[in-house]
Amino acid sequence: MTNVPVDVVVSEVGPRDGLQNIKRAMPTDQKIRWVAALAEAGLREIEVGSFVSPKLLPQMADAEEVVRAASRIPGVVVLALAPNLKGAERAVAAGVDTITMPVSASREHSMANLRMTPEEAVEQVRKVRRLCDELPSKKIRLEVGISTAFGCSLQGLVSESWVMELAVLVAKAGAESVGLSDTAGYANPTQVKRMFTQLKRELGDKAGAAHFHNTYGQGLANVVAALDAGVKTFDASQGGLGGCPYAPGATGNIVTEDLVFLLESMGLRTGIDLERLLEARKIIIEALPGEQLYGHVSNTELPKGFVYASATDRSVPV
Amino acid sequence: MTNVPVDVVVSEVGPRDGLQNIKRAMPTDQKIRWVAALAEAGLREIEVGSFVSPKLLPQMADAEEVVRAASRIPGVVVLALAPNLKGAERAVAAGVDTITMPVSASREHSMANLRMTPEEAVEQVRKVRRLCDELPSKKIRLEVGISTAFGCSLQGLVSESWVMELAVLVAKAGAESVGLSDTAGYANPTQVKRMFTQLKRELGDKAGAAHFHNTYGQGLANVVAALDAGVKTFDASQGGLGGCPYAPGATGNIVTEDLVFLLESMGLRTGIDLERLLEARKIIIEALPGEQLYGHVSNTELPKGFVYASATDRSVPV
Repeated sequence: MTNVPVDVVVSEVGPRDGLQNIKRAMPTDQKIRWVAALAEAGLREIEVGSFVSPKLLPQMADAEEVVRAASRIPGVVVLALAPNLKGAERAVAAGVDTITMPVSASREHSMANLRMTPEEAVEQVRKVRRLCDELPSKKIRLEVGISTAFGCSLQGLVSESWVMELAVLVAKAGAESVGLSDTAGYANPTQVKRMFTQLKRELGDKAGAAHFHNTYGQGLANVVAALDAGVKTFDASQGGLGGCPYAPGATGNIVTEDLVFLLESMGLRTGIDLERLLEARKIIIEALPGEQLYGHVSNTELPKGFVYASATDRSVPV
Repeated sequence: MTNVPVDVVVSEVGPRDGLQNIKRAMPTDQKIRWVAALAEAGLREIEVGSFVSPKLLPQMADAEEVVRAASRIPGVVVLALAPNLKGAERAVAAGVDTITMPVSASREHSMANLRMTPEEAVEQVRKVRRLCDELPSKKIRLEVGISTAFGCSLQGLVSESWVMELAVLVAKAGAESVGLSDTAGYANPTQVKRMFTQLKRELGDKAGAAHFHNTYGQGLANVVAALDAGVKTFDASQGGLGGCPYAPGATGNIVTEDLVFLLESMGLRTGIDLERLLEARKIIIEALPGEQLYGHVSNTELPKGFVYASATDRSVPV
């Protein structure tokens, strides 16, 4: 473990990836309360909604309102997903800091999820780049995650060289950061290390976040491999909420609580307070009673002698 | 990942570590059926029971009978735990292939779990070594796991240099293999890599298995780090059954199904068939209805395009 960074970013995607993949909608005021509690726990990047058609995803119909409320929280970078120019225009109007766009490597998944080919999705990235560049005032960051980068539940195997080619196309189209997303939960640590290493070789500082799902329970194992490849930003969802309606069998994202425990235990600073994070979890339970939540850290007390990375001076042993 | 072996051993500890830590006893005939099904799935090392006082652990009162039945399965190495000479004598008489002995690094845990100091436990190892050496016929292997090697829920931090010192003492006392056990589930990948690397430096070929619990959901992440340090044998429990009655809050071992998925996905050969392994899981559900089981692989289908490591010629990318 030679490239492991000391400061890592946990990017919370629960209010977007989590909530868009359960049947019920969380009431708007509860979403806002949840996002505030996440910020209170120390989360500094929160993806709060998705600017898609409310007909397709009624759970995300209040994205404008949640973005506006989140934007008032000091120190939080507010992310929202937009699959196309139209969504990006709404996101800009609502006041996001960062637009995240999905570009799927699997053609089948791309058609099912985005109703576009991968090449058409790249074209949308180019258009959103132009939109951002033409804004008179606020600078908005544009990030892309390559969905199904490690395999697809519709198509099966996805060519790694095609994923890299697509990542380069997306960067050239204007994304400031291109990450790899394991939409179906198929990734393994060997593949993760190989692909993020390759991504960094291709994109340099534009190599972006790791987005892992925990379908087969492999999420944190994949995080270890991604850290080893120098990845510094990890998406996660509180309580493991999430999935993908067009990737059958895909359960939620990796669990924020367990990820923070992993990173802090390893001596990597997240800036997140686990006890406050567990307080935030209670809001989901109140707002969505009976909803299936995941994770281990929430079931027990922190270890006797547990020390946060930020509370120690130690450098990370290699 | 430079030291990753291509062939790894998954050592099933469910019939011992799992069953001794739940309240009910699994009926003897069901235990035997379960062990046979595990062997059928390709498990080649199975820890089938514990030779402790039946007053203390009535769930293990039938250890002799289970060992005898397991010994009749061709190709399976039958392990049983013995905390002291008396237990080892019973294990030998029943016909085990391998005796496993726990030696706890935490003094508090050692007194609570074994009613001995660590030094007294090492003395028991020496006596059992002598017992094995004096056997006229069958050669029995002696393995030790250092319990609470990564921290203790009673004592808190455990000195890493003491763990190494103890491992060396245990090897000198005659253990053929000395592993490290995360009894409380406190381990993190940085620590795991550091300690197994050090263990190998101290013990060479006698450096033994990694035994992880999943209390904080970190088990498979720790496996990745242990692989990176060259560990070749991993304990796991089907369905994640297990824990430790003297380590409050410790839930089960890492889940065999999810571990096998991890290893095979990484291109490491376990010789285990996941579908047959999931068949074996059904026996637990039948024999212990309502018992809490864990794991992700059992909840969904194998990935589209999933290939076992043994079915491919690929060498492991580093």
